[in-house]
Amino acid sequence: MSQEIRILTESDLRHAVQLDHALVEAIERAFAALAGEGVVMPPVMSMALHDRNAEVDVKTAYLPGFDGFAVKVSPGFFDNPKIGLPSLNGFMVLLSAQTGMVQAVFLDNGYLTDIRTAAAGAVAAKHLAPRHVETAGVIGTGVQARLQIQAAHLVRGFPRVLVWGRSGEKAEVCAADLRASLGVEAEVATDPARLVAESQLVVTTTPATTPVLRASWLHPGLHVTAMGSDQPGKNEIEPAALAQAHLYVADRVAQAEAMGELRAARAAGLVQASPPELGQVVTGAVPGRQAETEITIADLTGTGAQDTAVAAHALTRAGVAGTVIRT
Amino acid sequence: MSQEIRILTESDLRHAVQLDHALVEAIERAFAALAGEGVVMPPVMSMALHDRNAEVDVKTAYLPGFDGFAVKVSPGFFDNPKIGLPSLNGFMVLLSAQTGMVQAVFLDNGYLTDIRTAAAGAVAAKHLAPRHVETAGVIGTGVQARLQIQAAHLVRGFPRVLVWGRSGEKAEVCAADLRASLGVEAEVATDPARLVAESQLVVTTTPATTPVLRASWLHPGLHVTAMGSDQPGKNEIEPAALAQAHLYVADRVAQAEAMGELRAARAAGLVQASPPELGQVVTGAVPGRQAETEITIADLTGTGAQDTAVAAHALTRAGVAGTVIRT
Repeated sequence: MSQEIRILTESDLRHAVQLDHALVEAIERAFAALAGEGVVMPPVMSMALHDRNAEVDVKTAYLPGFDGFAVKVSPGFFDNPKIGLPSLNGFMVLLSAQTGMVQAVFLDNGYLTDIRTAAAGAVAAKHLAPRHVETAGVIGTGVQARLQIQAAHLVRGFPRVLVWGRSGEKAEVCAADLRASLGVEAEVATDPARLVAESQLVVTTTPATTPVLRASWLHPGLHVTAMGSDQPGKNEIEPAALAQAHLYVADRVAQAEAMGELRAARAAGLVQASPPELGQVVTGAVPGRQAETEITIADLTGTGAQDTAVAAHALTRAGVAGTVIRT
Repeated sequence: MSQEIRILTESDLRHAVQLDHALVEAIERAFAALAGEGVVMPPVMSMALHDRNAEVDVKTAYLPGFDGFAVKVSPGFFDNPKIGLPSLNGFMVLLSAQTGMVQAVFLDNGYLTDIRTAAAGAVAAKHLAPRHVETAGVIGTGVQARLQIQAAHLVRGFPRVLVWGRSGEKAEVCAADLRASLGVEAEVATDPARLVAESQLVVTTTPATTPVLRASWLHPGLHVTAMGSDQPGKNEIEPAALAQAHLYVADRVAQAEAMGELRAARAAGLVQASPPELGQVVTGAVPGRQAETEITIADLTGTGAQDTAVAAHALTRAGVAGTVIRT
């Protein structure tokens, strides 16, 4: 039987799909599905290529209620910058949940991952951040620092942003970019403790292997989203913080205990019970923030469910863009 | 940086790439690489979709000495025939081993898997079958029954083929197809015991969950390739046969003990030691057949290494076929 398969490049996708409310809603539906029955999300397939200074991860998830499911391949080749290429690239393929046949190939070089990761931050902020956020702080100065603040701004219209990074210069550029893109007041914080003290919403976006946010910095009315840790060995938040928070949620407990903040907390003998997942907060099975003064933490490792949701959303948005292959 | 990515359909690939000596050599090199240092082949990622009567497997392998590595997705949606579609489809993507960037997308619907699976049978027969094969027998009557006999015929030019299947009618069609494609004498065996008794080379190609080949049927000068078992629960060869053979080899021990014939044999308390792998026979690290009278068994579950090899080979063969996407 003849098939039509749509091939979309990074450029096609950057034109067609943005980090916006519709995407946040699609990702929110994915988290709701994750909290329900019938989800099949196998552990991340991971291949470390030591002699290439590289790692390749494969994620997928079947979600009831979605017409398709994505398989995503994310290579990180960390010597690429030496030859003028980005470290991260990759692609997604959307398959029919009815027949398994390929519907679309997204040669996105990681763009869809970038925006679905940021959109999960928006979902966390929507359900967990205080209603009133005056200042949002971001630790880290990369692509996700910008996108996470842009995502959080969709759900909490804060007028002020603080940025901290190890490189003051990069932090200045990041703050300038956020000023330009969001029209907010944005400045560089002198140190991360100060950034946390002045913020009601903090996002950590670093590949840190020792904590960049201390438990003693937590204060009433703070929400923290930690999204940098996605591999065993990474750790952005001091383990004691997870135990001190009124509410700690993982995007997926099985992943968070293997490669998120929960891993370090468990290793420290803290957080013994099985914590709730973000999807349970989305569906209302677990209450989210219950008072403006609570302290909440969301631990996002990135799920195949988000890939399935962003791929389905992107195909809808793409319209007639790209190239159609007839088989 | 701009990339060129070649998209090849099943039709492009059927024209460009066949089961021939060059493919067998490519697959043989993959097995040799598997026996060496530096291979990274993670366990198969498997997703059972019970409410869809479906299963999705993902395989990959990085092989030193190969310029690229494949990621293969194999969906099996077993209700597809009800709506006129094949159960099995799927695709492969070839990524650069240097940069991780996508080089080619093979929308092959499983064609490359079919021929790389058969080519592994040829590698097994080349190194393990008796030098003189008068009669080759095949148990099963599907696509692999035909391809495995075609592959074995490349390395042992036998004049006669016996076919057995549960459906005598399908066995007749399979025998007729083999007569036509290979110019051999081909007939349907009255029963599988007789088929094995009259053959020097037997290939089992069934999804059997109870053995179709009994240990008592083994005879001097017999080689058996069992390629049907690729999931826990499948079992084509009576476990005692593995212990009785002079030489039993797995394509990959870790896979064979999880989803090949070795699983059932281990469950029966047989084959305690770690058996050799086909790649070690290819490189000479382990001797293959040492006498015409020996009994040998090869247990093929299908490896990501074969996918990497067939994808690299297919891209070379494709030339200017297909569609080039510029990103």
